[in-house]
Amino acid sequence: MEDYGRFLAFLASSLLVGFVSVILSLVWVLHYREGLSWDGSAAEFNWHPVLIITGFVFIQGIAIIVYRLPWTWKCSKLLMKFIHAGLNTTAMILAIVSVVAAFDFHNAGNIPNMYSLHSWIGLAAVIFYCLQLFLGFAVFLLPFAPVRLRAALMPIHVYSGLTIFATVIATALMGITEKLIFALKNPAYSESPPEAILVNCLGLLLVIFGSLILWMASRPHWKRPPAENAKILSPIGATPEGTEAESTMTNSSNADKSDLRSNTEAARKQNIKFDEAGQRSTM
Amino acid sequence: MEDYGRFLAFLASSLLVGFVSVILSLVWVLHYREGLSWDGSAAEFNWHPVLIITGFVFIQGIAIIVYRLPWTWKCSKLLMKFIHAGLNTTAMILAIVSVVAAFDFHNAGNIPNMYSLHSWIGLAAVIFYCLQLFLGFAVFLLPFAPVRLRAALMPIHVYSGLTIFATVIATALMGITEKLIFALKNPAYSESPPEAILVNCLGLLLVIFGSLILWMASRPHWKRPPAENAKILSPIGATPEGTEAESTMTNSSNADKSDLRSNTEAARKQNIKFDEAGQRSTM
Repeated sequence: MEDYGRFLAFLASSLLVGFVSVILSLVWVLHYREGLSWDGSAAEFNWHPVLIITGFVFIQGIAIIVYRLPWTWKCSKLLMKFIHAGLNTTAMILAIVSVVAAFDFHNAGNIPNMYSLHSWIGLAAVIFYCLQLFLGFAVFLLPFAPVRLRAALMPIHVYSGLTIFATVIATALMGITEKLIFALKNPAYSESPPEAILVNCLGLLLVIFGSLILWMASRPHWKRPPAENAKILSPIGATPEGTEAESTMTNSSNADKSDLRSNTEAARKQNIKFDEAGQRSTM
Repeated sequence: MEDYGRFLAFLASSLLVGFVSVILSLVWVLHYREGLSWDGSAAEFNWHPVLIITGFVFIQGIAIIVYRLPWTWKCSKLLMKFIHAGLNTTAMILAIVSVVAAFDFHNAGNIPNMYSLHSWIGLAAVIFYCLQLFLGFAVFLLPFAPVRLRAALMPIHVYSGLTIFATVIATALMGITEKLIFALKNPAYSESPPEAILVNCLGLLLVIFGSLILWMASRPHWKRPPAENAKILSPIGATPEGTEAESTMTNSSNADKSDLRSNTEAARKQNIKFDEAGQRSTM
């Protein structure tokens, strides 16, 4: 891998920032708020920020970059797809439980549901995330989708994933804003008590975590190497997605890749086509 | 251009969504709030959302995709850089004036400044945007930066631009949330009066606008065509950025590009290197 040290630095930073974010969300609800329970009280609502930050931000972020970890490149693509889908399913379950906690708390306290921009965009993000997961499962994990469909949908899958991830972080920032305004009364949010400073810092960390994940996910030279042999052997217009011959591909040096690239003129043209259309997974 | 009709549909949609967002921000402050003035009152604050949405969201969004408009591909790269920089400078000025309006309003009403997460992330976004603009001006517009420096900084410039843009939209959503909670008292935000519905819809439109711009900015086949002749004639390791020979490049067909690509083995390897490193502008 090119820039292996820099990749490790980014990975370590994002894991650290994500981990500290989860810890800060726990400090917030356990030290400054009412703790955690499941009884319709404010302590049930507190599951909402903790599970969103743990699942919908941290675990989703890891799921996005899991294909890029160089020590997984010797694993089969199918195994990595299962890990990607498994992490995203975990994130989805935690997100749904956290939404139920918020609704339960509202219903128990006769607080209206779904009036705020946070709730509108948040619910839309959960729905799109579920759709993305089910479509991804049907198209990329089950063996039925034709290769051309996979190739056509991959750029949309990647774009949707990153856009939903960014939207989730934006929604978390709105949620933090709402909660601090509603919960801090004496002293108020505008008086910057320690809780406000802590949770503002949590919000900043979420933005930094998102920025680190998006940088790692969008560097072309940190992509999992394509299965060059599968590419060259497959017919023009096909894509290695779903060609499980690549599953046993091990990491090859750039020189090897360059040699393989030059093998045939058809393969070279095909590679250019794939590169330009962005039709193979960028994650 | 590949998919010209689809590009036009995305462009028309983003212009429409951006334009409607600006109109809705005006309806909000002129019909539901205190109008616009510059006297330290709430009417001065109202410049804040209007100028942020007009400048920091809409104009910045257009600045991001301006290289991708196919009818500008016959214009010189230098002219397009001036237009890109000019639009971003306009957005920066409007953003700074809007921040001054918010501070003025706070100071006149003895409301503390810089306590909220919205203000922390918003001020950071303005500072990074100014840095990005001045660095971009110094490196890509002035003729002094060496070609290697331009090539090394271009991926960072593109990534920073898109990340700042997404952060600005997230900050606008937090700002909308704050303002609706503070301003709507009887009926409250939670009672969903017409103003709340209108401004929630405005927030949704900002997310849609951002998503459309990010889709257009990240499609590899909608990039401004590289100056192939400049690329092939330049030494290995150089990049066409700053080679103003490309300024007079007109749009060429894919077949022409393919022929040019095949001209020399060195040029081919160089092209692969550029494609993989993402070292030319993606916008």
